[in-house]
Amino acid sequence: MNYEKIFSKVQTTINNYIDNGTVATYIPELGNVDATKFGVFLTTVKGEHVSLENYNEKFSIQSISKVLSLALAYGLEGEKLWKRVGVEPSGTPFNSLFQLENDLGIPRNPLINAGAIVVCDVLISHLNNPKKDFLEFVHRISGNSSITYSERIANSEKLKGFRNNALVNFMKTFENIDNDIDEIMDFYFNLCSIEMTCEELSKTFLFLANKGVCPFSKEKILSKSKCKRINSIMQLCGFYDEAGEFSFRVGLPGKSGVGGGIVAIYPNKYSIAVWSPKLNKRGNSSKGIEFLEHFTTETKASIF
Amino acid sequence: MNYEKIFSKVQTTINNYIDNGTVATYIPELGNVDATKFGVFLTTVKGEHVSLENYNEKFSIQSISKVLSLALAYGLEGEKLWKRVGVEPSGTPFNSLFQLENDLGIPRNPLINAGAIVVCDVLISHLNNPKKDFLEFVHRISGNSSITYSERIANSEKLKGFRNNALVNFMKTFENIDNDIDEIMDFYFNLCSIEMTCEELSKTFLFLANKGVCPFSKEKILSKSKCKRINSIMQLCGFYDEAGEFSFRVGLPGKSGVGGGIVAIYPNKYSIAVWSPKLNKRGNSSKGIEFLEHFTTETKASIF
Amino acid sequence: MNYEKIFSKVQTTINNYIDNGTVATYIPELGNVDATKFGVFLTTVKGEHVSLENYNEKFSIQSISKVLSLALAYGLEGEKLWKRVGVEPSGTPFNSLFQLENDLGIPRNPLINAGAIVVCDVLISHLNNPKKDFLEFVHRISGNSSITYSERIANSEKLKGFRNNALVNFMKTFENIDNDIDEIMDFYFNLCSIEMTCEELSKTFLFLANKGVCPFSKEKILSKSKCKRINSIMQLCGFYDEAGEFSFRVGLPGKSGVGGGIVAIYPNKYSIAVWSPKLNKRGNSSKGIEFLEHFTTETKASIF
Amino acid sequence: MNYEKIFSKVQTTINNYIDNGTVATYIPELGNVDATKFGVFLTTVKGEHVSLENYNEKFSIQSISKVLSLALAYGLEGEKLWKRVGVEPSGTPFNSLFQLENDLGIPRNPLINAGAIVVCDVLISHLNNPKKDFLEFVHRISGNSSITYSERIANSEKLKGFRNNALVNFMKTFENIDNDIDEIMDFYFNLCSIEMTCEELSKTFLFLANKGVCPFSKEKILSKSKCKRINSIMQLCGFYDEAGEFSFRVGLPGKSGVGGGIVAIYPNKYSIAVWSPKLNKRGNSSKGIEFLEHFTTETKASIF
Repeated sequence: MNYEKIFSKVQTTINNYIDNGTVATYIPELGNVDATKFGVFLTTVKGEHVSLENYNEKFSIQSISKVLSLALAYGLEGEKLWKRVGVEPSGTPFNSLFQLENDLGIPRNPLINAGAIVVCDVLISHLNNPKKDFLEFVHRISGNSSITYSERIANSEKLKGFRNNALVNFMKTFENIDNDIDEIMDFYFNLCSIEMTCEELSKTFLFLANKGVCPFSKEKILSKSKCKRINSIMQLCGFYDEAGEFSFRVGLPGKSGVGGGIVAIYPNKYSIAVWSPKLNKRGNSSKGIEFLEHFTTETKASIF
Repeated sequence: MNYEKIFSKVQTTINNYIDNGTVATYIPELGNVDATKFGVFLTTVKGEHVSLENYNEKFSIQSISKVLSLALAYGLEGEKLWKRVGVEPSGTPFNSLFQLENDLGIPRNPLINAGAIVVCDVLISHLNNPKKDFLEFVHRISGNSSITYSERIANSEKLKGFRNNALVNFMKTFENIDNDIDEIMDFYFNLCSIEMTCEELSKTFLFLANKGVCPFSKEKILSKSKCKRINSIMQLCGFYDEAGEFSFRVGLPGKSGVGGGIVAIYPNKYSIAVWSPKLNKRGNSSKGIEFLEHFTTETKASIF
Repeated sequence: MNYEKIFSKVQTTINNYIDNGTVATYIPELGNVDATKFGVFLTTVKGEHVSLENYNEKFSIQSISKVLSLALAYGLEGEKLWKRVGVEPSGTPFNSLFQLENDLGIPRNPLINAGAIVVCDVLISHLNNPKKDFLEFVHRISGNSSITYSERIANSEKLKGFRNNALVNFMKTFENIDNDIDEIMDFYFNLCSIEMTCEELSKTFLFLANKGVCPFSKEKILSKSKCKRINSIMQLCGFYDEAGEFSFRVGLPGKSGVGGGIVAIYPNKYSIAVWSPKLNKRGNSSKGIEFLEHFTTETKASIF
Repeated sequence: MNYEKIFSKVQTTINNYIDNGTVATYIPELGNVDATKFGVFLTTVKGEHVSLENYNEKFSIQSISKVLSLALAYGLEGEKLWKRVGVEPSGTPFNSLFQLENDLGIPRNPLINAGAIVVCDVLISHLNNPKKDFLEFVHRISGNSSITYSERIANSEKLKGFRNNALVNFMKTFENIDNDIDEIMDFYFNLCSIEMTCEELSKTFLFLANKGVCPFSKEKILSKSKCKRINSIMQLCGFYDEAGEFSFRVGLPGKSGVGGGIVAIYPNKYSIAVWSPKLNKRGNSSKGIEFLEHFTTETKASIF
């Protein structure tokens, strides 16, 4: 497949796209970003890569890191993990607290905030130095030891973290939280603050397109079965209440973040990262989804 | 792939499976079925087929027919269809009425009852003789003109159809129902009453594994894009609130019915139908899911 | 207490009231009413009465009749009635179907639609000729045999009755409906269609201010205990999700209807009926509540 | 009315009452109480008083103190208070977070936890030394300066306060919390820890039966109108999702606490406090309600 040619064609198409999205502003650090930024980076499991525009600029990956913490926790905890968090889509967003109440403190999946907080709790129970150990895991799978947290963003998130504080306290009432709440939330807010370029993001997720094996080091990060299951969870739960729409339009497992990043996986083929800060009403990068829809249409290939 | 050998191996494994499920009994016609029945039939897009046990006995496909009515309606109505019904997973089952209220009468997807009722309404607006025309569509895609409704089951469903009557009346208050309620419900209950064998079910769904082209007549039933989108909807919404679990364990798009049938698709490869009447707590065939999980594990192939 | 003087004073005050309400229009028969109509009638247990403006014009009492059907059913069925319907306030309006689902088909109270439908079902089980027998009950308690149903309104309600049809079908799935659905709904829509003047309404409800004894015939309609309990239910559930606000502002048990009528009771003292067709956002007569608030303030007497 | 004789009669009746309730155990301090304790104290606005059994033992009044903080806040803040918290019953208990989400952070009433937390926030904005100033208010209305917080219970509540922490954080996301969360929760947990005897409780609430005037000092604590409104709120919201049942059975405004206390008011007549630690399924003293039902039946007087 000539990805370069397809990128070029989609880039032309997308030039006419009128983006009615808006940049996330709940913390100033996100609101200050240049809304016109746009970058794409694709890496194949064979080592090819293609890029577009601002592919080499750092942005806040935000919720995308929830997949990485899930991968580490699933490897450490195994199938016991699913007693603490489900694998089902979450339905409408405003339901989160309602469903948590209804499901007795078990979040519906590990990619919504409540589920990611439980995953942090699990990691703290396993790791000696959670923040440091997690970063080392990211370095291992990405082959890039420069990736790190943004202390500024983590602190800013913490100051606005009332809803997440509500979630963790609420789950504690159902005894689905083991460790100290402050430690969990510090870890959680740091995870969300990780910054990557499209290139780094694409490479970091490539092991999920490669049966769980890091394509750079050849290290087996996850079993093939666990790798598939994470992809399945991304497919069903990666875009909040727009998971169906993304699957319908793009046809690939993926994950978005409010920083405007999206990463998607074509199993056994490639990992692609897109970045455009303006978000649609459901909190996902509007131009990012538009690009990916045209891209999979042009490649004539989706998993379905 | 030697599917025969894999079938044989999985059959042996599954022999030890202790099935704690229970047969659906809300209408006597379903409750009277022999709970020990078990059949499997796989058809590849190349024309191979493999079968197991009671693959040649008729059973009530129930909600599986919702995919067929969706396919016909999507072809006739096009993308306008999605103004009447969504493509998102539905969350917990008991939410159905609640979510319908919250979403102003727009069902979350066409594979839950409310959505399938809207699809029936759309079909009635398009077809001269809905029940007859729909059956002809099923004959076309299956290459089998003997498939038909069970009047006995349709009547029995109608007598117990209070919840579905509640749904259609409720959607009418939001003006998402155009035609006569009694006509819609008669059509809906007939759709649910269709009976097929595993062989027939597998063959009927093969066009969805074959880019929308009927593998027997070579007729194009749906565009490639529409075909993929229906597969995406099955992946995210085909198993009620167990969609995530099915995707996680089996990794294929599929649809279940309370008659104990399941059909699953591997795009570009095969369609597989399983039948075992005992249902798990979430209303899906327990042994059926177990078989499919072992089957995709043995084939070492899922879409993820 | 000089009620005449107080009426006159409140009338002056209320003249300046800017009514931002809107007349109910979901059926044309309600929408066609003259929005400027305003009537009040007070009857004391001692036989005094005071009136204002259009007190002698008929209007559709709508949901106010739910108290009358409750009174008849409670007398016939006794405390067993509370196995079929609760006595708790219903919370927000849009919850109705949700709460019905959550409470397994038991409506929260007999003054919301679902509860009133159950009461109709109970009455049909007791009465030979429900519509005729109910009307005779109303004639007995009001001392007025001219009160009757409006066939025109009943038929109009029936044509728009999808939500109520949804409720009755839904409760049937929980086996909280015994009789034929069509018969229940015909009875229900007729109850809602009763027309009274303010004078008739005030007199009809006077037995509830008089310990259950009809003040005209001296007939004991309900035991003192049952009478108090109906007043308690009106206090907590008589104004949908505005029950607290009405109790807070007016301090009396009462019931409203979308025709713009309100009736309120001061136990052992009086029954007062107000009519003004414009409704506030919660479906209760805005000028009606305003009048009653000023009235109880001027009388310096509420039950609290 | 010969209250002494009635007390004696009801005491005899109630001796046969089989109490299936259970003592609250979520904090050890409540669980350790003697479950057989039973006390009653009635004070009339004319200064009469009658008592039964353990009327002179201290117990934790818990949520009953929410009425006192409301009274103080309402006096200080006036009608602006109702922009921060509603006056409507709350429906089912598990809805609390759901309704808070639906109502954009405005609690339904000041007697559920979320509402009482907002009231604490309001008080902190008004008072120099909230804990000290509130206690002085209690001393003023009760004419008893020995009433105080239980530090032991406040600390114990704090350790188990995850759900309340969830509520305050959640309301903060809707900007319905002004002050420091830790300060609010410290104040809130202290309020819940106040201990009184039945005698003290009965006397403390007597001003609400006396048009807002403290019967001991003759000081006007609240305007007559504000006093009535607090009674209305107690009537509709004082017993969580059992408000209707309590109103139905007892017919008086009142408030319960998980320590097994109940206080009820007969406007212009009396204040009565009951204590029995075993709670029914809805968290209200079962024997307490039973006593009050028989008591108001015997007095042949309720507000309805």
